[in-house]
Amino acid sequence: MSIDLNCDMGESFGAYKLGLDEEIIKYITSANIACGWHAGDPMVMDKTVKMAKENGVGVGAHPGYPDLLGFGRRNMDCLPSEIRNYVIYQVGALRAFCDVHGVRLRHVKPHGNLYNTAVEDETVARAVAEAIASVDPELIYVALAGAKTEHISRIGQEMGLTVVFEAFADRAYTPEGTLVSRRQPGAVIKEPEKVAARALKMAKEGKVMAIDGTEIPLNAQTLCVHGDTPGSVNLVKEIRGLLEKEGIQVKPM
Amino acid sequence: MSIDLNCDMGESFGAYKLGLDEEIIKYITSANIACGWHAGDPMVMDKTVKMAKENGVGVGAHPGYPDLLGFGRRNMDCLPSEIRNYVIYQVGALRAFCDVHGVRLRHVKPHGNLYNTAVEDETVARAVAEAIASVDPELIYVALAGAKTEHISRIGQEMGLTVVFEAFADRAYTPEGTLVSRRQPGAVIKEPEKVAARALKMAKEGKVMAIDGTEIPLNAQTLCVHGDTPGSVNLVKEIRGLLEKEGIQVKPM
Amino acid sequence: MSIDLNCDMGESFGAYKLGLDEEIIKYITSANIACGWHAGDPMVMDKTVKMAKENGVGVGAHPGYPDLLGFGRRNMDCLPSEIRNYVIYQVGALRAFCDVHGVRLRHVKPHGNLYNTAVEDETVARAVAEAIASVDPELIYVALAGAKTEHISRIGQEMGLTVVFEAFADRAYTPEGTLVSRRQPGAVIKEPEKVAARALKMAKEGKVMAIDGTEIPLNAQTLCVHGDTPGSVNLVKEIRGLLEKEGIQVKPM
Amino acid sequence: MSIDLNCDMGESFGAYKLGLDEEIIKYITSANIACGWHAGDPMVMDKTVKMAKENGVGVGAHPGYPDLLGFGRRNMDCLPSEIRNYVIYQVGALRAFCDVHGVRLRHVKPHGNLYNTAVEDETVARAVAEAIASVDPELIYVALAGAKTEHISRIGQEMGLTVVFEAFADRAYTPEGTLVSRRQPGAVIKEPEKVAARALKMAKEGKVMAIDGTEIPLNAQTLCVHGDTPGSVNLVKEIRGLLEKEGIQVKPM
Repeated sequence: MSIDLNCDMGESFGAYKLGLDEEIIKYITSANIACGWHAGDPMVMDKTVKMAKENGVGVGAHPGYPDLLGFGRRNMDCLPSEIRNYVIYQVGALRAFCDVHGVRLRHVKPHGNLYNTAVEDETVARAVAEAIASVDPELIYVALAGAKTEHISRIGQEMGLTVVFEAFADRAYTPEGTLVSRRQPGAVIKEPEKVAARALKMAKEGKVMAIDGTEIPLNAQTLCVHGDTPGSVNLVKEIRGLLEKEGIQVKPM
Repeated sequence: MSIDLNCDMGESFGAYKLGLDEEIIKYITSANIACGWHAGDPMVMDKTVKMAKENGVGVGAHPGYPDLLGFGRRNMDCLPSEIRNYVIYQVGALRAFCDVHGVRLRHVKPHGNLYNTAVEDETVARAVAEAIASVDPELIYVALAGAKTEHISRIGQEMGLTVVFEAFADRAYTPEGTLVSRRQPGAVIKEPEKVAARALKMAKEGKVMAIDGTEIPLNAQTLCVHGDTPGSVNLVKEIRGLLEKEGIQVKPM
Repeated sequence: MSIDLNCDMGESFGAYKLGLDEEIIKYITSANIACGWHAGDPMVMDKTVKMAKENGVGVGAHPGYPDLLGFGRRNMDCLPSEIRNYVIYQVGALRAFCDVHGVRLRHVKPHGNLYNTAVEDETVARAVAEAIASVDPELIYVALAGAKTEHISRIGQEMGLTVVFEAFADRAYTPEGTLVSRRQPGAVIKEPEKVAARALKMAKEGKVMAIDGTEIPLNAQTLCVHGDTPGSVNLVKEIRGLLEKEGIQVKPM
Repeated sequence: MSIDLNCDMGESFGAYKLGLDEEIIKYITSANIACGWHAGDPMVMDKTVKMAKENGVGVGAHPGYPDLLGFGRRNMDCLPSEIRNYVIYQVGALRAFCDVHGVRLRHVKPHGNLYNTAVEDETVARAVAEAIASVDPELIYVALAGAKTEHISRIGQEMGLTVVFEAFADRAYTPEGTLVSRRQPGAVIKEPEKVAARALKMAKEGKVMAIDGTEIPLNAQTLCVHGDTPGSVNLVKEIRGLLEKEGIQVKPM
């Protein structure tokens, strides 16, 4: 029984610093590294890939929309061919730093609104998948676990691409197995023990307690964690501690 | 006896079109493709790599400074580590499109001021060479032929990197084997027959007539040509025609 | 009886040239000048404002989304406060060049998708109007004429802002007074005489023949023309010639 | 007897936060606000101008090179006409936010390498001065005090532009009245009491103790302070406290 803990990293840019990467890297097993479009730059990418390697953490590309000003969080109405080529570009750029440091690029997880639109819009998911498969079909596509992404599972099978699904231990789920919108009360769970317990249930039983109290299946092979604040780093430490105490092996996807 | 004809390509960006790529591609043997920093974008890179493959033209990366507004032609006082990582990033991005189209990335030719500063400043040349060697030591580094780039030859040897030198048939040379500054009268040669004759002399004899009339050695394995205007495309056609008529094989480096 | 002819200008960027600005400027009466976000740069803005002044053409700002790569034609899901501040920024930047050349900034016409979303989404129109009114309430807001932009008329009145409506002589209209989508056959009218005749009807009678053959009212004080190709410049010449021959005064809004 | 305390502000960008602006604003009298090229964005500019107004702080534009990645700290070999137009653009953009908030733009202080090259290169200083004078000749040009900027004084007089000189209380000066390079030991003075005492001597006597112990004249009307860390904010508090205790009026330039 095992699970992966992934975290978005390498989001600093030039003089701007974001995220406690040096801290969080100790507790995670996969790093999703920004590729210079919505965040990150070549200096940061170089440093972050090196740091991931030194810590035995799996390296992934974290491509986003060309919107540094909006941190890739705003929807941009791009054509599928544009999305495909933007992802190819960013994955290739990050992979070069992997070659430089002698580490293999393992996965690709789209960032922000590109991640979200792939959930809602099959053509976007297909464009992302095509990009990944066309660069290297051994790369893993990381997508949202749950009822709304069956199309990504299907697209992965069509293309011979491995899809790994991720869950969020600190987010509430609907009884249908989708994320409760952040605008709803109770959407984000803040108590560290609760979050750690949810992570354990996800890893051990493949289940989550939905917001209405019912228990639903949630098939996730990786859990997304955050490294923005000292509090979030401590939360990851707690999650990892509990998982290991309960006999769950925490290792890269 | 053979020579390569290389041309900067893929310099369009978004709605902006630059260069008669579809025309010039028929007459050259190597394409230096912009990587999205000083020019080019993922859509253009995808299309240009595909076109190069279809025309049997060798594919190279053409990385530049992060200065789209200045088209990479302005000097930027970057650290060697910055130059190194900027080149790694851009080479990786272009190489991903090569993978997508099943073609091998062959060479890297720095663009504009990055090309020029590598001639003047050994630390810049070293940063570029390190970037290339660290991504893939089989990539060729294309640099200016002549007296001023012996350091690049030496750096290449140190790193086990192949350096291919290029000459400009339409530019005047000093008796010392360096380019006459564009600000000097006679720096650019415009008569098509003269340019073609110079190209032939470079390819056949490894020599060029300097601006003072003396004949000097110039060891170049590739000639740089341009595809900006219908006139420049015709010039390349004329150069290639003369070279082939005179028994010089025109083929990729 | 008078009408204004407006054209998007100053869309070149760095080494990239777009539009026959030097040609079209002779036949129009208002220039919408790009402000460096989706197109244009400070060198181009300086030159274009100067050229507009020398030709007695009214100067307007043409702000767009922060998307040079997509030429401002893709929707970006920006907050109203973001749109407001982006427009303020761009209008201010262009107005500085007006001050430098001693000419008054007269109008603001949003570009591309910002123009289109202001038609569909009242909050966007309001954000644009607020930006204009807060910088200088004497600036004119140029918006699409027709049934779909009554909200812009209303917003302008609320804010004490003059709104000038524009029509497209080369675009088909529905019987409801909206533009026929470019995806429909017949959406764009190409015959120069037909376009000129439509322009005349718009200017003289305030009417247009809809795609179903019915005649509908269309209250427009400015007609949008294009200067992309020699053909489009000739079309403007023809439109202006016919308008003046028929006694319509062609002058800035 | 009076002095101004100025600080670079509004250097955040999108999701990236830089500087303790809300803290430092309480202790300074002039704010140099980034204009979106090397730092800052329209949201930040809007907020920072508003905050400056509410705190009775003089508002200045802080234009820089088009190099967000390098934070405007790297030299870019721009033409004088480019520098002029880049400054016009940025000053105009910031001034629009001043209009929105009903506050007058007072000064322009170039940022980073643009500031430095104006010291070394008279053509750069002239381009900056021309930009300022052409937008609004009542704007103040803030430049480095000392022996190396007599040309800026002269250029200001020629153009009818007020130049205000600034000194750095935390930087060592050579006996010739220039800044000791940061690469030299002792270049930056860190003890708060020493820095405050130097600020007082600059404000009260127009003098500074050079690095060799000699006392030299230094004619500065504004002192540059920093708001990057809690320590730097405290230092400004201490400087202001001492100045006021000693009867120096601290007020906008």
